[in-house]
Amino acid sequence: MRIGVVGLGLIGGSIALGLREKHAVRGYDRDAAARDAARGRGLDVTDTLEAVLPADAVIVATPLGAIVPTLRALMAKAEGTILFEVGSLKRDVAALADTAPAHARIVGLHPMAGSTAAGIAVADPALFHARPFLVVPTSRSDDASMEIAGEIARELGGSVTVCSPQVHDRAVAAVSALPLAAAVALGRVAREASPIPFDAVAGTGIRDATRLASTPVDLALPLLAAPGLAEHIASLREALGDIERALGDEHALRGLLDGARPERP
Amino acid sequence: MRIGVVGLGLIGGSIALGLREKHAVRGYDRDAAARDAARGRGLDVTDTLEAVLPADAVIVATPLGAIVPTLRALMAKAEGTILFEVGSLKRDVAALADTAPAHARIVGLHPMAGSTAAGIAVADPALFHARPFLVVPTSRSDDASMEIAGEIARELGGSVTVCSPQVHDRAVAAVSALPLAAAVALGRVAREASPIPFDAVAGTGIRDATRLASTPVDLALPLLAAPGLAEHIASLREALGDIERALGDEHALRGLLDGARPERP
Repeated sequence: MRIGVVGLGLIGGSIALGLREKHAVRGYDRDAAARDAARGRGLDVTDTLEAVLPADAVIVATPLGAIVPTLRALMAKAEGTILFEVGSLKRDVAALADTAPAHARIVGLHPMAGSTAAGIAVADPALFHARPFLVVPTSRSDDASMEIAGEIARELGGSVTVCSPQVHDRAVAAVSALPLAAAVALGRVAREASPIPFDAVAGTGIRDATRLASTPVDLALPLLAAPGLAEHIASLREALGDIERALGDEHALRGLLDGARPERP
Repeated sequence: MRIGVVGLGLIGGSIALGLREKHAVRGYDRDAAARDAARGRGLDVTDTLEAVLPADAVIVATPLGAIVPTLRALMAKAEGTILFEVGSLKRDVAALADTAPAHARIVGLHPMAGSTAAGIAVADPALFHARPFLVVPTSRSDDASMEIAGEIARELGGSVTVCSPQVHDRAVAAVSALPLAAAVALGRVAREASPIPFDAVAGTGIRDATRLASTPVDLALPLLAAPGLAEHIASLREALGDIERALGDEHALRGLLDGARPERP
């Protein structure tokens, strides 16, 4: 296939690098430095958005706020091209699809992998190997476009699950937005509570536990708009209260510790 | 030096492997299978605790509950041997030292590194490289024993900070026990809140954030007795409440996100 990738950061860059063996991949980024860096990694890169067309598929991997405008711009010119996007939340894309022309084909993708590092310099064609990969149909997804979505996800090494935009966004609130909020709060409290400066005492454990607090602010902010996050934070506060009350009660603590990992590998 | 290492799990095993190039290291574990596994990794292993003596230093790396009894047993037979221990909390060792014979030499060590994996099979002489390494004097530490403590910590590659048992335990409550409690609560809530099964949707972020919930229960329970943990959990609940209230207010959220990482590398 001829595949366009718009937005050549960590995710878009990794997708482009992961697909170019089997497909004719052309990339675009609105930032000239990112385009140069992508060329430096051997990608075929165009200087305008429109020049990724004609294509069988275009994958939009811009920051979340730019996804709908980019899809609109492509829809106006790309009859017959299947449009994919890899944003962290699907509500706005689902709404766009509901009002899109009948010929439009739009499918959401969400590889559950990433890093707090950003940019094509850290892009890796193996980033999605053995990672969950959600495929999210909209009202403008048909069998052919869903099949190609699954093909792309599998070619990138992902483990595919199909779900609706609503279910997707609720899952993201639980497994992406909530851990981000928890990491931000934990990082702040641990630093304030430790009588030894953080860097002189922090080992692997707390560093892993608070890594998400280093998510770039422009990625973190939209994620904190995930639906139901406020309720999940309230549940987390309650779960912490359960532990607080169990302190000193070995039997109760064992129960809470055992309950935290029934399905862990 | 002749150095004994008692308790050949991940930490004790890594210490023994890390010190044997420069010192005559003898190890002991009360579990015969652990002794065999340690011999399999090329260590000189004795079949009784007493046989690690005579030694210039013995490092006790048993589970926390066994540290004081092991130190008592060694003290009875080891005049002139400096006793070190690497437990996660120092309160009980400090109390032991306060009532120990005048000739006893006892110093706390705490390398801030580890893994949720356990046992000498995963021991690694490089485990402590570039990691914080706390050296904790007791009332039975003198200049010579403190100097050897620093030497051992540096030979293992650690970055040394000296602190009192009280300061140590308060720091551990903030950077080890609190993240453990947070991981347990977060793992439970994220699993309950996600409409997609955890393994089909969990990416790197939540897996890192909840890794500490897989700490073996017998290591986790004593850590949850760290002093001040209840207050830290209460602070974490408040910090989560701050985020909950800021949701939808971009300016306030930016402030919280920026505040979470002022000193991060």
